[in-house]
Formats: sequence, structure tokens, C-alpha cells
Amino acid sequence: MKILPLTKLDKLLHPDSVAIIGASPDKKKVGYAALRNMVLSGYKGRLYAINPKAEQYGEIEGVKVYASIDEIDDHIDLAVICIPARFIPPLMETLGQKGVTYAAVITAGFKETGEEGAKLEKQLVEIAKKYGTRIVGPNILGIVDTSAPMNASFAERSPIKGEIAFLSQSGALLTGILDWSCAEGIGYSSFVSLGNKADLDETDFIEALAEDEHTLAILAYLESINRGTEFIKVCKEVTRKKPVIIIKSGRSEAGSKAASSHTGSMTGADTTYDVAFEKSGVIRAEDSQELFDMAFAFSFMPIPKGNKVVIITNAGGPGILATDAAEKYGLELATLSQEFKDKLKLFLPPAANFNNPIDALGTAQAEDYGRVLEQSLLEETVDGVIVILTPQAMTEGQETAEKIIEIRNRYPLKPIVTIFIGGEILGPHIYQLKKNKIPCFPHPERGVRAMAALAEYDRIRNRPVDDEIPDLKRDKDKVLEIIERVKSEKRNNLLGTEAIEVAKAYGIYTPATKLARTAQQAADLAEEIGFPVVMKITSPDIVHKTDIGGVRLNIKSKEEAATIYEEIMTSAKNHHPETKLLAVDVQKMEKVGKELIVGSMKDPQFGSLVMVGLGGVYTNFFKDVSFGLAPLTKLEASTILKRTKTYTLLKGVRGEPPSDINAVVDTLLRVSLLVHDFPQIKELDINPFFVYEDGQGVSALDVKITIE
Amino acid sequence: MKILPLTKLDKLLHPDSVAIIGASPDKKKVGYAALRNMVLSGYKGRLYAINPKAEQYGEIEGVKVYASIDEIDDHIDLAVICIPARFIPPLMETLGQKGVTYAAVITAGFKETGEEGAKLEKQLVEIAKKYGTRIVGPNILGIVDTSAPMNASFAERSPIKGEIAFLSQSGALLTGILDWSCAEGIGYSSFVSLGNKADLDETDFIEALAEDEHTLAILAYLESINRGTEFIKVCKEVTRKKPVIIIKSGRSEAGSKAASSHTGSMTGADTTYDVAFEKSGVIRAEDSQELFDMAFAFSFMPIPKGNKVVIITNAGGPGILATDAAEKYGLELATLSQEFKDKLKLFLPPAANFNNPIDALGTAQAEDYGRVLEQSLLEETVDGVIVILTPQAMTEGQETAEKIIEIRNRYPLKPIVTIFIGGEILGPHIYQLKKNKIPCFPHPERGVRAMAALAEYDRIRNRPVDDEIPDLKRDKDKVLEIIERVKSEKRNNLLGTEAIEVAKAYGIYTPATKLARTAQQAADLAEEIGFPVVMKITSPDIVHKTDIGGVRLNIKSKEEAATIYEEIMTSAKNHHPETKLLAVDVQKMEKVGKELIVGSMKDPQFGSLVMVGLGGVYTNFFKDVSFGLAPLTKLEASTILKRTKTYTLLKGVRGEPPSDINAVVDTLLRVSLLVHDFPQIKELDINPFFVYEDGQGVSALDVKITIE
Repeated sequence: MKILPLTKLDKLLHPDSVAIIGASPDKKKVGYAALRNMVLSGYKGRLYAINPKAEQYGEIEGVKVYASIDEIDDHIDLAVICIPARFIPPLMETLGQKGVTYAAVITAGFKETGEEGAKLEKQLVEIAKKYGTRIVGPNILGIVDTSAPMNASFAERSPIKGEIAFLSQSGALLTGILDWSCAEGIGYSSFVSLGNKADLDETDFIEALAEDEHTLAILAYLESINRGTEFIKVCKEVTRKKPVIIIKSGRSEAGSKAASSHTGSMTGADTTYDVAFEKSGVIRAEDSQELFDMAFAFSFMPIPKGNKVVIITNAGGPGILATDAAEKYGLELATLSQEFKDKLKLFLPPAANFNNPIDALGTAQAEDYGRVLEQSLLEETVDGVIVILTPQAMTEGQETAEKIIEIRNRYPLKPIVTIFIGGEILGPHIYQLKKNKIPCFPHPERGVRAMAALAEYDRIRNRPVDDEIPDLKRDKDKVLEIIERVKSEKRNNLLGTEAIEVAKAYGIYTPATKLARTAQQAADLAEEIGFPVVMKITSPDIVHKTDIGGVRLNIKSKEEAATIYEEIMTSAKNHHPETKLLAVDVQKMEKVGKELIVGSMKDPQFGSLVMVGLGGVYTNFFKDVSFGLAPLTKLEASTILKRTKTYTLLKGVRGEPPSDINAVVDTLLRVSLLVHDFPQIKELDINPFFVYEDGQGVSALDVKITIE
Repeated sequence: MKILPLTKLDKLLHPDSVAIIGASPDKKKVGYAALRNMVLSGYKGRLYAINPKAEQYGEIEGVKVYASIDEIDDHIDLAVICIPARFIPPLMETLGQKGVTYAAVITAGFKETGEEGAKLEKQLVEIAKKYGTRIVGPNILGIVDTSAPMNASFAERSPIKGEIAFLSQSGALLTGILDWSCAEGIGYSSFVSLGNKADLDETDFIEALAEDEHTLAILAYLESINRGTEFIKVCKEVTRKKPVIIIKSGRSEAGSKAASSHTGSMTGADTTYDVAFEKSGVIRAEDSQELFDMAFAFSFMPIPKGNKVVIITNAGGPGILATDAAEKYGLELATLSQEFKDKLKLFLPPAANFNNPIDALGTAQAEDYGRVLEQSLLEETVDGVIVILTPQAMTEGQETAEKIIEIRNRYPLKPIVTIFIGGEILGPHIYQLKKNKIPCFPHPERGVRAMAALAEYDRIRNRPVDDEIPDLKRDKDKVLEIIERVKSEKRNNLLGTEAIEVAKAYGIYTPATKLARTAQQAADLAEEIGFPVVMKITSPDIVHKTDIGGVRLNIKSKEEAATIYEEIMTSAKNHHPETKLLAVDVQKMEKVGKELIVGSMKDPQFGSLVMVGLGGVYTNFFKDVSFGLAPLTKLEASTILKRTKTYTLLKGVRGEPPSDINAVVDTLLRVSLLVHDFPQIKELDINPFFVYEDGQGVSALDVKITIE
């Protein structure tokens, strides 16, 4: 696969001309730091400094100062803005008129400070839009690209040149990571502070960096994602070419959403991100340590062709810890051939362990490590190698590190991750490995996790293309008509019969249901539908019908239907005296099936989630549910169902016949289309959703729909 | 609480006289390294070197060499043995006769090498036992105690003096950790290699180190635990005085156990360790990184009085990551008083965030950090403080570190954990903090986890004393009689009626059940019991009764009973033609209750596990079960039940009346006593176990018992 040179954002990351607006000779000012960094970065384009005191300053750091950007007789690709916030809107007019392509607004004091700042930010964006100028920020540390090279930031120093692009919604975190990375020897291709993301955001940069031939992997620290649908679309493509690894913070804000549906109550604030990342092929780092451990691995190592590894160690204990971690993170220990073991027996002592993990014993010399490593890399069943070293009496730290480096250079196609447990003695050799682009970790579990991420990415980039949204037959007009009617009546909750009509229009099987407004009507409709029937209170104000005796089953005659109508009404009026719109749904009573729940919940960023899982009384206790994002493909619908434990029940247990799994998947697809076609639908619950034996279908007994 | 000076193992860790047996002038030999380490350690006791070539060598490293230990006219507290394995048994005779107290056998080549070695090891232990000599090892790196001081190991160097005792079942891991710790500045009180644990084991050392005034916390790397019951007994005591943190490897060996019961199939190989650690108050580290992050915290910081923390940061992003981690690891963000915020407003800029996490902004100076930290420590609602620093333009790294150190010295009673995100710029200040005994981490989540461990230990040491095993009325003789009978018949599985008799003898309610061997008998017994009845095939060979139509419900007459008897027999014979012992249990049919499962499974190390959780068809899918170790206290029985999601169902949901939770707890206690009184019981299953409304009890419908 060929990585094309950067096309999008090219003149942002590789500008031919840069103007630092607010350049200053005052070393304490951001306007100085940004200019100095540009000069120090070795930037080879045309660089201009702008400051009204141009005459007084003359030059700063050897760069000529202009009083205004208008004085420059050149097209400016990138304006780096360091002047106070309130001056920026008029400046944007000037930049726009001049046709500046990109503006990186370092200045803070916008949305992050409150309402006033938000207004200013809006103004800024509107002006830029008018002229087509694209903005990074505001409120950023800046932008660095080591291949350009250019450093348009006020960071204390430049990152080392490397193959990782790092995007961060926190500028301060960037400074910390930069400082840490310099010490650890991790380099970056691009280092982008996203700030308030008023215009350009993570999706723009990910899309652009996918084409950047200097970038092997894209890492990001994000607190939010701006354009969810676009993000998924872009990342689905990008992750087939390059790994995208994201740490998303703000998990603990969960539960802040108020939700009236079952589905809503089972959706954490972070569920959507998990689902969206999975759909996109994005690897989600659990914490910062993991993010940068993965950065190490992706920077320096090729992607393995599978998840089978060999662990080589000179000590049992760390080998066991690594094996535990391999199981935890989804790596398999490769099965080794007899030939392989026979070769090892030629040089390792008989007491060594020739099974995986291979324990070469405390006496293992550099030469031994080299041979085992080489053999392992040559073994066809092996996708990657994890090398563990502890500093024992006979251990040759330096020679072993050198041997690993040498072999790595000779066999560059399979990843090697090293774990050197030590500090004072092994420290210099750990440094040597890192300097030679071999990831080295102080603890077995971290090394294994990093290798597992490489293997995970292999799975991601080779996942089957799955883009076809089934275009099932459905009656959109009918649904639109119902929704419009509900809206016109200023309601948010559809009545039971309305919701059932919506479901029907989308081909979701529901039992015959009619609305009765008098006891006589209830009796007549019951007869028409055929006994036995179920009767349910229906009112936009009553959500928990069962709790007030509003659901009655197994009604067998007209007389009974009439009596029960009155009972339901009395109870409903007692419990909800305020309610005006009372009626009763009369529904054909269906036989009992396996009880599932199907639902949907709208997310402001990513569109609608579709949920499936265990229904009935256990729903809220076991929360055995799984989510996907609409519109679902057939594979996705089937995958989210399979991810639940309930799926095992549907397959049939202890001699039971299997349930109609196809009909469940079909329903999920129909629900997915419905909520995708009608983003007005905020929440949807089908509960209970009965599933019958294979071939006998499903039944959506109760459908609840809330619109925005 | 006063820590007493070491009493147990005192002369092992603080010997007055040490003999290095196999001392050698050959620098490549372990016998040289051990002697050199003793000399370099500053050991102040009497040190002897033993080597048959005494005359030739004269002195090694200034220590006089004796040809044999017999030549020494002194009592020897500790003999450190470095001679080849095969010479050790006769040596042990000599040592025994001389009355040597402890022998640390460094030499490898015992149990770990196979059968021959195991024999040699057994011999060694037997001789030692005869004389009362206690052994460490064999196959160890050695023993170090920095307060003695003494270093009886062949490690490359000595640990720094510190307050942590570290026990390790892997010697090589010790060398790695030692090397790493020296670089990180982590010190140790004792550093013990456990090796093959032929005699002294983790429990002995934990018990001894609990009394060691130089040890604040005990850490261990373990691959197994030798004497489970003793371990729990000792740790329950010790963990009230000192934290015990263990990483137990070998998790991935799960599933290797063959089990025929439900309970067995739901017990991972590692479940028992989790349960045992919890019962003991041991903190289990998830991985090595976590173990040593905790070591940092416990070495240097006091235990907080609760889990409420303040997070101070100069950057939003890392603050959010820390908040996410706090929620994940069970810390709470302290609510801050208005007075507190008002004080902060006096010096922090208005744009700062005065809520927890406190964002002092990128401009925060050392003085600002100092004031916020000091105020936080003074705040009554705050138990500990987490300080995050990123290296921004105005950041005063050094001064901030100094300020933290100063305040820490003035306020030593609450823990402070720091997170300095950086490397090149912040590196020296991170070093400065560590040197001054303030834990410092590179990533927010790791710092928060370490603080959370401190808070977790506060909960552990203050947990209520809970030792009283209820002595419920039970008929042990009856059970013994049944078990003896089953054994005499060379069976392992009790018949249904036998198992029910056992349950009854222990006061566990079971429906009336009789064994029928003919159709006539079945009919008569059914009448005697009262209709309706249930009939179940019973045979030691048939485990899955339902699958072969061996369980029939709701039998309402004598005729029906007789017919069904024949049907069951025919089916059983068809499916299991080999079976001879066929009969049918006739049981009173009970009304249906909430369906639970109660069980027990014997663990070779820790005794019997007791399990409770969701029964019925869902048992194997949701695995909503929880385990305790017999004998359970009342609190434990209630706690394990409460830990299941099923407990919420028992409390009553959606207007249902609560179930008889007391009766479930009572049953757990009775099962616990049963399996504790009769260790012969290998597995026990009560499934289904019906629970009725509060006050209406429970019913053990089917009891399965397997004995060893």
C-alpha cells in the first residue's frame, strides 16, 4: 500500500510562507517564542514577523518585522496569531482580504472563558468563513511538523523527528508529552494542538495525516469529537492505511444524561465513543501510559501478520507474568515445531524450557538470545517476538541489546518488543535499544500490551469491508405523517398505536392493535381482533403502565373487555388525575417467546445508537445489551447481537430448539433504518420483544417512541 | 498502633553470626558474591567463611576461611549454602548437629529440575526437621536485610535502605527489581528470595515482617501459596497493622481443572486467590507496574483517613484524565467549602477553576501551588492531595518541587502524590521529589491508582473484626454415616436421597423425598408424600437428568406415578444401558420461587469455596455468582450474596415483595459449615434453589454431592 504525499492541509503543515502576527522581541512573550521556534526549526520557507512597532524593532531573531501583513508582497500560507483576542476579528478581515490560507490562532480568551469569549470566537469563524480562511484553534500551543520542518508553537522546544502524528485537545498536555518524549527518544512527524476546534478539528487532521508520507501512526488526546458521523466516515478509511489511537477523556461524566427509556438508562455517556471507535477501527487507549506505550510500538515496529508470539526470557517469573498478560490482551503463544525445538536444543542447556514461553535460563548469553530470536523470527507460525531480560550474574546486557539490534536490522518484517527489567545496570542498554528504535519496557505486562496493540491493528486494517446498508422496503411517508401529526399536537411521546403503526410501516412485526376510547369500543375491537386480547392504558403522560395496573392480559370475552376498560380507566385517573388524553390499546395476545429488548437512543454527535439485549425483568440487572450506530450493515446488526450473552440463549441451550435469530437481525436493521431516516426520533424502546423458534419470527409487543 | 521489634525469624534476618558455606575466592562463583555482599553490607555480626581448601585460601575478602563448620567455636545463626546440591544433605546433618538455626540454601538443582531434584529436596527437609534447622529455599538469590544490615545473596548489588519488605518466588525477578529500584530510588527493609519454599514460605515471612519495626509495607511476587488456610489466618492479622500487596502470577492457567459440577465450571483457577486475598485483606496488584507504583506510595506516604482527594493541576486535560481515573479506582473528589474557594480566589486568577479538580491555570507559579496544596491539606474534608504539573512557559519546575517538599515536611499526616508530566525539563525535579520521598508519576492514571491503593488500605485496616463462625445446630454423625456408607460402596457421587439427607442433617430445607425402586413403591410413596409430586431418576452414573427425560413434574395420582416410573426407567436404560443402580426419587412438588444456585468446590490450598448466584437456565450465561471461603461468618455470607446482581432481584423489583434473604444467608452458612466440617466433600451443588417471599423460606430442590 502506497502512502501518498499530503494533499489536504498541505500548506498548513508544510507552508511555503509564514507570518507571525504579534511577533515580539520580549522573550517572555508567546510572540517571541513562536518566532524563535520557527527560526530554530530550520524552516526553509519565507518567514515574516508582524508587529505595529516594526520600525522600532527592525528585526527579531534575524527576521525582518513588518508593521502590517498588508505590507508583505507575498501570498501567506499560514498566519500564526499571537495578538490579544479582541484584536483578532478585525485582523481576520485583513487576512481574509489578503487571501491568507490558514490561520493558527494561539491566543486564548475565547469560548473557554465563557459567553463573551464564545461570541468573539463565533465572530472570528464567521469572518474566516467569508473569505475561506481555515482556522486552527483558537487557544492552542501551536503546530509543529518535523518533516516540513516548521515549529509554529510557543513550546519550550521542538520534538524529535519521528513517524507519529500527535493531536491534542489539551495544549498543556502537549507540552508535558513533548518534554517526556524528548527524554524517552520518541519522535513525531506532526504535533498539533487542536485548542477550541472552532474550525479545523480532529477529523480534518486525521484525514490529512492519512496522506502524509512521514506519518506512520496517528495518536490523539481528545475530550470531545466535533462531527461524529464525518469522524467515523474518515476514520473507517484511514484506519485501513494507518493506525489511529485515541485516548478520550471525560469518561466519568457518565450518567449525567436524563433518559426516560430503558435504552437511555443503559447508555453510559461514553458508550457512544466506544461504539464509534469500534466502527471506525480506532484503537482506544485505556490510559496515558498505554497510549504512549503503543506509540513506542507503532513508531518503531512493523505490523505483525497475526497475533501469535514467542516469548523469550532468562527467568521464569517474568515469563509467567508475560503469559498472563498475553492471554489478557488477546495474544496467542505460538505453537513451536519440533524442528524449532531441536535447533534450540543444540545450544541451550537441557534444563531450559523449549516450549513457549522459552526460558533460556539465567545463564543465557547474548549469543543464546540471538539464536533463539533469529530462529523465532524465521519460524512461519510466529508473528512477533517478545524478549525479556533480567540482569543476572552471567547476563550480558550490552551484548544482548546489540544482538537484538543486529537481528532486528536483518529481519525487519516481524515486530520485536523488548522488556528489560532493571535500571542501574540495564539502564544504558535500555537506552541503546530505544535509540535504535526497538521498543523497550520496564515491566512484562506493558510490553505485551504494546505488542497486542500491533496485532490488534493487523486485525483492524484487514477487517472485511462492510459498507452496504440494506435498503429494506419501508413506508417513509406513513412515518413522516405520524410524526408530523404528533408534532402538530405538541406531543413528544407517540401513543402506543402510533408507535405500532410506525413499526409496521418499517416492516417490524407487531400484533394487531387498536385504540379504544370507550368500553363499548374496547369490547367490539377485542372481538374484531380475536380473543384472547391484551389491554393497555395509553396516554402521553403515563410511562410505567404496569405499575398502575394499566396492562391486563388474557382477556377472553367482550364482557370482560368492557369491564376491564373501565377498571383501567379508573386506576389511571386515580394515579394520574391530571391526564386528559386517556384511551386503551386493545392488542392481540401473542404467545410467549424469548424476551429481548430492542431500542435506540440518539447521540448528539454520532447519530442514533441501536441496542439489543436481554429483555424482561432481568433487563436492568444484567444489562446484557450491546450497541451499534445507525445505519447498521447486516454484519454489524448480527455482530452486536452476537456480542450479548443473550445470543447464546437464542442459539438454544440444553436441547432447546434455536430461536429465530434472522428475524432479530432483520428487526435491528429495520429499527436502524427507521432512526436513521428520522433523526427526529430521540428514543425508541421495543420491550418486550418476543423471539420465537427459528422460522417463526418475532413480535414487537410494546413500542415506545419519543421524538425531539 | 505500635510495631514491635522482630521476634519471629529474628536471627534469620538479623543474625549475630553467619557462615558462608562454599565461600570462594573465585569472583565468578556464587560463593564469592555472597561473601563479598556480606562484607560490603556493613554486617556487624560474626562472619565465617567455610571451604575445604581453607588452608590454601587463608582469607577471602578479609574473612578467615575454615575447612569445616565444625571448626568454628561459635553458635551459628545463619548458614548460607552455596555448595553443589548433592553435597547438601550430608551438610545438613553437620549443621543440625552443630545446632545451626537457619540455613539459606542458594544452590539450585532441586525440585525445579524434576523428580531426582525433588527427592533430594525432600531429603534435605527431613534432615533439617530432625534437628529443628529452618530452611530458606533452596534455589534462591538470597536474603537481604538493610536494617541488620546484612546481604546474604549473590545479587550484583545491595538495595537502598528503605521501609518496604519484598518477597519473591522468582529470584531473577528480584535481580531485575533490585536494579530498577536502585535507579528509581526505592529502598527496601528486607529483600527475600523464597525459591522452592521447601520449608519457610511467604506466610512465615509475612508473619515475621509484621513485627519488624523497619518494615512499613510488605510486597510479594508469588506463583503459588503453600499453606492457604494459615496464610489467610496470618494475613488477616497482619493487614490490620501493615499493608500486604501481592502480585500473583499464573492467572492464565485457568480452565485446566476438570469439574463436573456447575460450581466447578464457574470457578476459574484464580478465583480462589481473589477470594483468599479479599478475606485476608491483601491488596492484589493487577500487574508489575501497579505493584511498584503502589510500593512508591506506601514507602513514602501516610495512610489517608478516607478516599476523598483534591486534584491540583495547571492544565485541564491531565486533570480530566485524573478525574476519570479517580472514579475508576474508587477515589472521591472532595467537596470544597466556600471558605476554601474564597481563600483560593485571593491569589488565583479569576479564570482558574476553583472546583475540584482545581485548575490553577498554566500561569501557576510555585507559590500558587504551595498555597493551594497547603489549603487543601488543612481542609478537613480532604484525605489526600494529587498534584499535577505540566511544563508550560511560566512553570517553575524546581521551585514547585521544592515547595511541595517543604509543605510535605510541614504536613506529614496526609498523603501527597505528584504527577509531573515531562522528561527533559521536568526530569531533574522529578528526581528531586523522589529523592525527598514524594511519589512522582509520569501519567495521571498511575498516580491516582497509587493514591487509591493507600485509601483502599485505610478501608482494609479499619474493617470490622469478623471472626465469629456461627455454630449452628447440625447432625455431624448422620453426615459421617452417609459419607462412610458411600465410601464403603466405592462411590463418589451421593444418591439424590442421600444428598438430601445430608442437607437435612445440616438444617437446609429440602422437600420430602423418598427413593422408589419399583413402580408400586413410587405410587405408594407419592401418595404418602402428597400430590402433586416430582419424580427424578437417580443413579450415580447419570449427571444430566433433565437431558434424558429423567425429571417429571406435577404428577397428580398414584396411577400416573406408576406409569411415569416405568417411562423414566425405560428412558434411562436406553440412554445409559451400562447403569445398574437405577431408582427414582419421589419428591414433594414445591411452588416455584426465585431460582438461585448454591454450591461449593474444594480448593487444594485454601479449603472449600462457597458459591451463590443466579440459578436456572441463565446460570451458565450470566455467571452472576460470587464466592467465599468456608467457614463463612454471617457477614461474609451476607456480603457474597450482596455482591451478586441476583441480590437486587431478591430485594424485590418493580413492586414485587422482597424475598427471604435471611433464609438464603442461613443456607450459605449451613453449606459452609457442612463443607468445612467434611473436607471429604469435593463438590456440592444445590440447583435449583428456590427462594420464596420474605418469611417463607427457601427450598433446596436438588442437591448433588461428590466426595473425594
